[in-house]
Amino acid sequence: GRQETVTECVKDYVLDWTPMLLHNPVPLKEEDSDAKALTQLSFQLNPCCYYPCQNSGVCVRFGTDGYQCDCTRTGFYGQNCTVPEYWTSIHLMLKPRPTVVHYILTHFHWLWNLINNSFLRDTVMRLVLTSRSELIPSPPTFNTKYGYLSWESYHNTSYYTRLLPPVPQDCPLPLGTKGKQRLPDVRVLVERFFRRKTFRPDPQGTSLMFAFMAQHFTHQFFKSSRKAEVGFTLALGHGVDASNIYGETLERQHHLRLHLDGKLKYQLVNGEMYPPTTSEVPVHMVYADTIPAQQRLAIGQDVFGMLPGLAMYATIWLREHNRVCDILKSEHPTWDDEQLFQTGRLIIIGEIIIIIIEEYVQHLSGYHLKLKFDPSLLFSHRFQYSNRIALEFNHLYHWHPLMPDSFLIDGDEIPYSQFLYNNSLLMHYGVEKMVDAFSRQPAGQIGGGHNTPEVVLKVAEIVIEESRAARVQPFNEYRKKFGLKPYESFNEFTDNREMAQGLEELYGHIDALEFYPGVLLEKTRPKSIFGESMIEMGAPFSLKGLMGNPICSPEYWKPSTFGGETGFNIVKTATLKKLVCLNTKWCPCVDFHVPQREDLKRRAATMEL
Amino acid sequence: GRQETVTECVKDYVLDWTPMLLHNPVPLKEEDSDAKALTQLSFQLNPCCYYPCQNSGVCVRFGTDGYQCDCTRTGFYGQNCTVPEYWTSIHLMLKPRPTVVHYILTHFHWLWNLINNSFLRDTVMRLVLTSRSELIPSPPTFNTKYGYLSWESYHNTSYYTRLLPPVPQDCPLPLGTKGKQRLPDVRVLVERFFRRKTFRPDPQGTSLMFAFMAQHFTHQFFKSSRKAEVGFTLALGHGVDASNIYGETLERQHHLRLHLDGKLKYQLVNGEMYPPTTSEVPVHMVYADTIPAQQRLAIGQDVFGMLPGLAMYATIWLREHNRVCDILKSEHPTWDDEQLFQTGRLIIIGEIIIIIIEEYVQHLSGYHLKLKFDPSLLFSHRFQYSNRIALEFNHLYHWHPLMPDSFLIDGDEIPYSQFLYNNSLLMHYGVEKMVDAFSRQPAGQIGGGHNTPEVVLKVAEIVIEESRAARVQPFNEYRKKFGLKPYESFNEFTDNREMAQGLEELYGHIDALEFYPGVLLEKTRPKSIFGESMIEMGAPFSLKGLMGNPICSPEYWKPSTFGGETGFNIVKTATLKKLVCLNTKWCPCVDFHVPQREDLKRRAATMEL
Repeated sequence: GRQETVTECVKDYVLDWTPMLLHNPVPLKEEDSDAKALTQLSFQLNPCCYYPCQNSGVCVRFGTDGYQCDCTRTGFYGQNCTVPEYWTSIHLMLKPRPTVVHYILTHFHWLWNLINNSFLRDTVMRLVLTSRSELIPSPPTFNTKYGYLSWESYHNTSYYTRLLPPVPQDCPLPLGTKGKQRLPDVRVLVERFFRRKTFRPDPQGTSLMFAFMAQHFTHQFFKSSRKAEVGFTLALGHGVDASNIYGETLERQHHLRLHLDGKLKYQLVNGEMYPPTTSEVPVHMVYADTIPAQQRLAIGQDVFGMLPGLAMYATIWLREHNRVCDILKSEHPTWDDEQLFQTGRLIIIGEIIIIIIEEYVQHLSGYHLKLKFDPSLLFSHRFQYSNRIALEFNHLYHWHPLMPDSFLIDGDEIPYSQFLYNNSLLMHYGVEKMVDAFSRQPAGQIGGGHNTPEVVLKVAEIVIEESRAARVQPFNEYRKKFGLKPYESFNEFTDNREMAQGLEELYGHIDALEFYPGVLLEKTRPKSIFGESMIEMGAPFSLKGLMGNPICSPEYWKPSTFGGETGFNIVKTATLKKLVCLNTKWCPCVDFHVPQREDLKRRAATMEL
Repeated sequence: GRQETVTECVKDYVLDWTPMLLHNPVPLKEEDSDAKALTQLSFQLNPCCYYPCQNSGVCVRFGTDGYQCDCTRTGFYGQNCTVPEYWTSIHLMLKPRPTVVHYILTHFHWLWNLINNSFLRDTVMRLVLTSRSELIPSPPTFNTKYGYLSWESYHNTSYYTRLLPPVPQDCPLPLGTKGKQRLPDVRVLVERFFRRKTFRPDPQGTSLMFAFMAQHFTHQFFKSSRKAEVGFTLALGHGVDASNIYGETLERQHHLRLHLDGKLKYQLVNGEMYPPTTSEVPVHMVYADTIPAQQRLAIGQDVFGMLPGLAMYATIWLREHNRVCDILKSEHPTWDDEQLFQTGRLIIIGEIIIIIIEEYVQHLSGYHLKLKFDPSLLFSHRFQYSNRIALEFNHLYHWHPLMPDSFLIDGDEIPYSQFLYNNSLLMHYGVEKMVDAFSRQPAGQIGGGHNTPEVVLKVAEIVIEESRAARVQPFNEYRKKFGLKPYESFNEFTDNREMAQGLEELYGHIDALEFYPGVLLEKTRPKSIFGESMIEMGAPFSLKGLMGNPICSPEYWKPSTFGGETGFNIVKTATLKKLVCLNTKWCPCVDFHVPQREDLKRRAATMEL
């Protein structure tokens, strides 16, 4: 009986596939002559190369040239998961487009003033959190090796996960069935579309204080392994674990710890606390050869010696950790070093999360809704308290256009050549003047192209090369995955005619545009730091990572986790300003926005009304 | 301002603690003279040694001799979380006692016949799953090193987790403040209460087929590390990952794989498939020195060479995996070895889970409710799809009384001396006769004491010694944690007067009774394999582990995960009998119950009505 059933099934699939070849619901337009020729040429073509399954349906190849879309719980049915179920159509009808939602959230200041001061703030915030994080599969799914679910990709946390499986190995064209036979030369792409001509400040007024926070924050979970293969990470915490402060491994952590009162080791320079040097703390740090050991700071993350902005944040968090330990010790004199350290670490993790949500994401979003970090908002919802960092999240977070052409500190202009690896600057100016300077200097606009400074141009090349090695699906497939309409032409994708023409010439088809150029070169939203895709794709990854932290679970989110009400309150009331000013001699300007002239502010407010 | 706040907080706690010393809500009865004397003696005593916080409140030590209970989300308030909130009291009033629930579930056959055939089966099953798994904290909390929440105990999966934190280090008595100065000698305990006198068959009719399944199944997630420290595991999958079939490490897995059509390596003996030998597959296996390499079977779990019953299950699962791969390959001729293997593995994991729930747990429970494995029952509930194996789960699962005095196969009586490590028996009799024999031979009753066979008596000693090294809290604290009334005396704990007297003499106080003797020696329920505690504590760990598997998540539970409808159906319709009989030449008796004489069955049915 069994064997027969199997044979029948195979027959079914073959039948399923035959009509698909005849009247293919995958848009095979006339201009797709390359792809069409190929279909007719070879019946062995993997049909999943067409990305036939819509609305998050899963493509499974059957027989030699058949496929099936698994539409389970997509809300759609039909061979390609294109037919909405009844409730899905209602939902689709009622659901406003992302552009509309964004417009509402960034306008109507008076309305948001009312909402922010009522119970509706919680309601809207809950909606933001759930609608965003529902887009991220949890438990995680694919990775660079596995384009299908497997125990290995679930269990082996050395992989970055992948939201979409890789482009199948056996497709006729690099990104499936669309575009040119060969992908554009990476050098050409970067030179023509990424290289900065003149510095374009971010119209949202982002400061360097933000830029360094972005870098410091994300490098606790973006630590691509330098092994031969692509798609692996060294950051096994897969989220906000403060490993950039405490080190990834237990060994590194113990090197960095004072083993007294829970504190981290430090050095005093002019009576102020800084990270110790590698001559005292023998941990691996990446430095230029020219830097002597007594100037090499030892930090949780081994690349944070590269920029004084990162060393500055490392110094601030080091001071904060030790300050928190003092407070804990005064309440819990019987606690040993270990308990003070571990509880301090949970408080620091909480502080990071609230500052990121309520100030960093708040700034980025441009929303008038006052974002709120309150884990209890999700307690009545189905939500998985776990996270796996995705390769796509890593790629889209390469925000190097933020970097300026040079750094302005205390009246000095410092070129990259004097800035890189030069932490003596940090000791020279002190944390206060550094923070003040970075809070006043504008960062570059991330989106729109032509704004990546020379010094990091290579990074853009590397990302694109890596995405090719990892067979990342086309930008338009990601648009669909995140509920956005795929672009139909390069002219729709960007308002810059020259760029549209250039991309068309290099890629041949909008459906063959790669992911990273997609999120970075897309037309920006009006007066915004980047385009629609960066927000709509980045926010889900980001919020899921922040709220999926175990400290946000009902099991952890209580006073005792943080040593009692005092520690819990430190978390719940943390701000960037307190983080800096409780750890400095005087309180500098601390802001993710550069100061706006009062008249400009007033004009902006008027225009909105 | 800050420093003042801190000082105020400290004052508060001191004030909190002072009245507690005066009229202590912790039951300090007159007979607790030891403990009382100690309180008066030293004001430095850690108050958490009294386990003052009830109803899952978390005890945090403040100052030198103060404490606070964190009652957040326990449903209770007050200094020791003893006062129920309004809704809690309603809930407590309506909630039937575990004994009542168990009575209903194991009686009224006619009622359950109706329920099992209506939509109510789903409703009750959902209730069983949610009420059980709510008792298990997820994300996990403590471990043997950390009696408080910490990033390390969350992130480091080498630890078994702990439901209750260890007994604090600085308590006056081994288990806190109750009992004798020294715990009873382990040898004495085991000899007096554990050693089998005459074999007592399980009144539920459990067969050896069940006993070997228990051992085979649990040793995929119970693999205590043999490092110096206690509380570590080598089984990093923390659940049903089929690592007992495929090996824990990628290296072992690749040794065991054929690298062709997704299959595992095998040898043919008399035309039948068996695991390969270590001479062909160089993986570490534990065998007696006397066993030659060509008789050493190579299996995923390295201790499974020890008993032919385990090698038998290993053989069955090996055949099943390879059978599934054939089916997958016939539907997916283009799939490579890796995809066939990985998808086969997910199907095998699904089969394990459904057989364990619908047959193994069904048998153990004695419920008339027909248990159902249907992950979608939980899709509308808050449920964490992750699991961490607990030390307490490991300890309570030491079910060695199941083992008989000797093995009866095909008319032969085989003593342990000829059974241990002797897999030639498996080849000699073949899988069919082994299954048949094991399905007919009764296993021993687990609970009630005096039923651990000589040959594994040492294991009971080791568990108790390990639990002392790990500072496992008293049995009564676990009773409370699982919503059971703590026993007030040894006479309430066991009906065996001699045992009650003996335990009283050795432990001094029922609140000082250890965890493992607690779950094993407790009076059994009428005609049951063990007592109330084993079920009420074991079931939550078990069901959370089974349903917390990623394949049960909405993200995974769909046809494509298992290669399509065919594979999905293999999972959804798997039974123990099919597992055996689709992989053997003839279909033997396959059952977790020994055959019951028809008249006995009829009589039992009549009595129930």
